Amino acid sequence: MVRWKPGARERLQAAAMDLYISRGYDRTTAADIAQAVGLTERTFFRHFADKREVLFSGQELLEQAFLDGVATAVPHASPLEMVESTLSAAATFFPAERRDHSRRRQTIISENPALRERELLKMAGLATALAAALRSRGVPEATATLAGESGVTVFGVAFGKWIAEGEERSFLDIEREVLGELVAMTAGTTRPA
Amino acid sequence: MVRWKPGARERLQAAAMDLYISRGYDRTTAADIAQAVGLTERTFFRHFADKREVLFSGQELLEQAFLDGVATAVPHASPLEMVESTLSAAATFFPAERRDHSRRRQTIISENPALRERELLKMAGLATALAAALRSRGVPEATATLAGESGVTVFGVAFGKWIAEGEERSFLDIEREVLGELVAMTAGTTRPA
Repeated sequence: MVRWKPGARERLQAAAMDLYISRGYDRTTAADIAQAVGLTERTFFRHFADKREVLFSGQELLEQAFLDGVATAVPHASPLEMVESTLSAAATFFPAERRDHSRRRQTIISENPALRERELLKMAGLATALAAALRSRGVPEATATLAGESGVTVFGVAFGKWIAEGEERSFLDIEREVLGELVAMTAGTTRPA
Repeated sequence: MVRWKPGARERLQAAAMDLYISRGYDRTTAADIAQAVGLTERTFFRHFADKREVLFSGQELLEQAFLDGVATAVPHASPLEMVESTLSAAATFFPAERRDHSRRRQTIISENPALRERELLKMAGLATALAAALRSRGVPEATATLAGESGVTVFGVAFGKWIAEGEERSFLDIEREVLGELVAMTAGTTRPA
């Protein structure tokens, strides 16, 4: 009979992150991760499809937050307001106590070309999902794609700022700043230095 | 002694596209392509690193056009004007006589998940290169990323419209329309249907 220890998934994830940082992602196996917390490789694979999934398992939840953001925008919201609603919903995923985890995850990903590609494809998938949600709320075809891509771009730039060393503002505050920069840029009011 | 027939590269490319459409990309080999135009597999590999490169070999030239567009923007141009200059430069790559080729290429890519991923990564690379060029002209960090991503998004949406069945407008006219849609969306003036 299999005994499920509480929190096995969280312990595996924490151990994986530690190993990916200290030993390197490529040199860490699922067996190493399981062993670090006194579990078997088989148990690891009950929680994660592979060692990459440890880094990307939150994807569906984040995508759902994006979609919920569109769904809960006020009736007759403009596409821009729907994007704002989405950014607010996405921000709830990144409370201050998650910042250190996000920094470590980004360090791991930035050092590995295959993981960087996976992250880019994840962002592209988010943009496609967001555009589809906008279309389902009556946003015209091309505008939905533009708004979906813009929303994900703002999210990505905000994420990069949020994890910068010394940054202490909330994710939402930074998203609002970045969206303001996008609005100023497209209005043609930003000037180069 | 090797005899170089003029236009071998172009003939290989044309034969490859025909085979990718008629037989399928996965079921076509470099040898098949070479044989179709009476050349050897070895000759194929003198022109292309692999069968995928037949579809992506124009990448560096397109990226260069993007960068030239930034470089040739008027002094003190706003980031938006630099993006406009880039879109104009990119449009020169897609004259009317290329439309049928682009349609066929897109059909091949859209049917193959690995090629779709490659295309997404190519677009991400273009956005990164464009952002770097904007930064080198004094555009602030975050705005450069936003403008780079926006420029490539407008380019991509315009490309999708340009190859749509029955579309006859020029690439540049469509890019201007799509950029206008982005400007309206971020100004909050677009309303859903």
